[in-house]
Amino acid sequence: MSASPPIAPDRAIRLALPSPFALVAGGRLVGAEVAVETYGQLNPARDNGLLLFTGLSASAHAASHPHDPSKGWWEAMIGPGKALDTDQFFVISVNSLGSCFGSTGPGSIDPATGQPYGDRFPELRIEDIARASQAAVDALGIDQLAAVIGTSLGGMTALAHAACFPGRARSVVSISGALAATASAIATRSLQREMVGGALRSGAGPDAVNHAMRLARKIGIMSYVGSELLEKRFGRHQSEPFAGRGSGTDFEVESWLDHLANKFANQFEPWSYWALSRAMDLFDFGQVGELSAGPSDPARTAKTLRLTRALVIGVQEDLLFPVTQQQAIAALLTSADIATEYVELSSPSGHDAFLTEAALFTPVMRRFLNSLTRPTPTTIRPSSAARTQ
Amino acid sequence: MSASPPIAPDRAIRLALPSPFALVAGGRLVGAEVAVETYGQLNPARDNGLLLFTGLSASAHAASHPHDPSKGWWEAMIGPGKALDTDQFFVISVNSLGSCFGSTGPGSIDPATGQPYGDRFPELRIEDIARASQAAVDALGIDQLAAVIGTSLGGMTALAHAACFPGRARSVVSISGALAATASAIATRSLQREMVGGALRSGAGPDAVNHAMRLARKIGIMSYVGSELLEKRFGRHQSEPFAGRGSGTDFEVESWLDHLANKFANQFEPWSYWALSRAMDLFDFGQVGELSAGPSDPARTAKTLRLTRALVIGVQEDLLFPVTQQQAIAALLTSADIATEYVELSSPSGHDAFLTEAALFTPVMRRFLNSLTRPTPTTIRPSSAARTQ
Repeated sequence: MSASPPIAPDRAIRLALPSPFALVAGGRLVGAEVAVETYGQLNPARDNGLLLFTGLSASAHAASHPHDPSKGWWEAMIGPGKALDTDQFFVISVNSLGSCFGSTGPGSIDPATGQPYGDRFPELRIEDIARASQAAVDALGIDQLAAVIGTSLGGMTALAHAACFPGRARSVVSISGALAATASAIATRSLQREMVGGALRSGAGPDAVNHAMRLARKIGIMSYVGSELLEKRFGRHQSEPFAGRGSGTDFEVESWLDHLANKFANQFEPWSYWALSRAMDLFDFGQVGELSAGPSDPARTAKTLRLTRALVIGVQEDLLFPVTQQQAIAALLTSADIATEYVELSSPSGHDAFLTEAALFTPVMRRFLNSLTRPTPTTIRPSSAARTQ
Repeated sequence: MSASPPIAPDRAIRLALPSPFALVAGGRLVGAEVAVETYGQLNPARDNGLLLFTGLSASAHAASHPHDPSKGWWEAMIGPGKALDTDQFFVISVNSLGSCFGSTGPGSIDPATGQPYGDRFPELRIEDIARASQAAVDALGIDQLAAVIGTSLGGMTALAHAACFPGRARSVVSISGALAATASAIATRSLQREMVGGALRSGAGPDAVNHAMRLARKIGIMSYVGSELLEKRFGRHQSEPFAGRGSGTDFEVESWLDHLANKFANQFEPWSYWALSRAMDLFDFGQVGELSAGPSDPARTAKTLRLTRALVIGVQEDLLFPVTQQQAIAALLTSADIATEYVELSSPSGHDAFLTEAALFTPVMRRFLNSLTRPTPTTIRPSSAARTQ
């Protein structure tokens, strides 16, 4: 890209997307933007960027910084000497297009009507999230990223990014992601959408929508964390023993879910939730960018990648994105001649482990990311690079 | 019991409970009754009875009979030469107290008000289901049952029956039951109740309640069947490929859940569902009948049992009633000097396996039940009987 001005470290910005911004399923957004936070400093070669894709519910605020000292969702992982070492890397965290924390989404005002998009927001795909984030990378004047890193939905987005923008990143880190959702994950999310969409469409008012969001979030939490963790932490403990029918929340596990669900329902835009959830179900790495195509062909997509290296991390207790899916990602990347490291961790937090187990993830991520700064894997022809593993 | 008239085989009857019928948590029911079906013939010694406790959603119609030729919920398991062999046994199937298929429950008319009980139905416990069913056994003039058999909620009820009525059954068969619910099962059911109870209490009308019942049932189905089964049967098959946001049911797994959920929501009484679900969470074998008691003490309860033999069956893929719980039941009964056989089966149907895997369950059940008709275990002092295994 052309010479760009230096970028101030550690800040929160909003970047305008090209307008109109065409979505892969056919819609277009006028005047759309994405919220971005950056940590660390872009080096003079502008090649130390790590693009971070988040899970469904996260904002761009992944770590605290001077302009926002509140803890970020990946606080333990980002900073000087941490897994995403800001002494070495320039971390770019983007709020997903379609979300509700500064990026354009269903809660934003549609300039055509002056009203929030709501369910008139055009159909969103994971590829669109990757594309909007890459537009931010372009705006920052970064030609090639050291890595794209993503967790959960972000893991899918990282894979989509690799397929949509061959050569724009040298490596990928997929954590608890998927090439495509399982039937069971689709069933779970479909149920959550039916709940939230039903309340939104019924016109029953904000209380009903908040109730539906709370319930949907509880289903989510229960699909994220393992039953072993619930059993160990709560068992059958009761805060008000045998309070009878009352609130139905006298088991401590019930109060705990209530607390988390309320927090989420009070801050997340319901149609954003709906759109991001649906995008996860529709994602298929074997059909990236080819909506009308025939059968899914992940191997074909994998052959188009231009990555030198990949790190795939799975968690054995994850039921929503099971390790079989993680193994499939690793096997596919390996078969496409990408030097791929596969790591399986064990944590009772299941799908949520990347949020709670910094001690487990840090050494794995650090070793991988630090090795990226060494000369060998920085060839600009990744497809012909020797396998390092 | 006093001499009773012979009982006609294969029929559906309603039996009046003693009135008022006192519930263990303090409430009482006036003029309550239970719906009962029987299959096979009571022998002259009146000692070949098998009392069957059902899962949450089932009626007493476990098998077809001349007065109702429609298929029962355990059709493949009950009949001449089948697992519950009606050539040898007299099977008594009771619709749980609190349910809605002929037994008194929240949908029944409260004689005190002339209106359905709804949420004024007194708090129901698993022990009450056992006690109402035993009242039916009393009314049939049966002094001692050959076995009580229960699946899921019915497995809990079978264990409750053994503790509430020592000596009234010679053996117990617990299939995918539990001594007490796990935190994860409580969380799941709590969510379902919040959904259904919320809609009922909001006064939003029958459509909203039906919607909530459908969603609750989907959560139930997803907790019953394993993700492996969903993956194998449906994968990512789409009935209307990329129909977009529309109904949100274009994945086949979504349509399948819709179908099952509609069926359930159209036939099950919402407050019955609420009450039975809550009863499952509150059940604790270590506190049977002792509501104000201190800590749960399953070993103490187990010592009061007067069973000669037990069969405990678990399914490895069952997440709602995991095999760790089945092993705990078997270990507890064994430690109480009850000759206990423990069988672990494998089926992608998970918790639902007892409904779909007759071929797996039949040999196990047959061998156990047929051995009951041999002389050895028919002593009327079960607590002093020699262990047969």
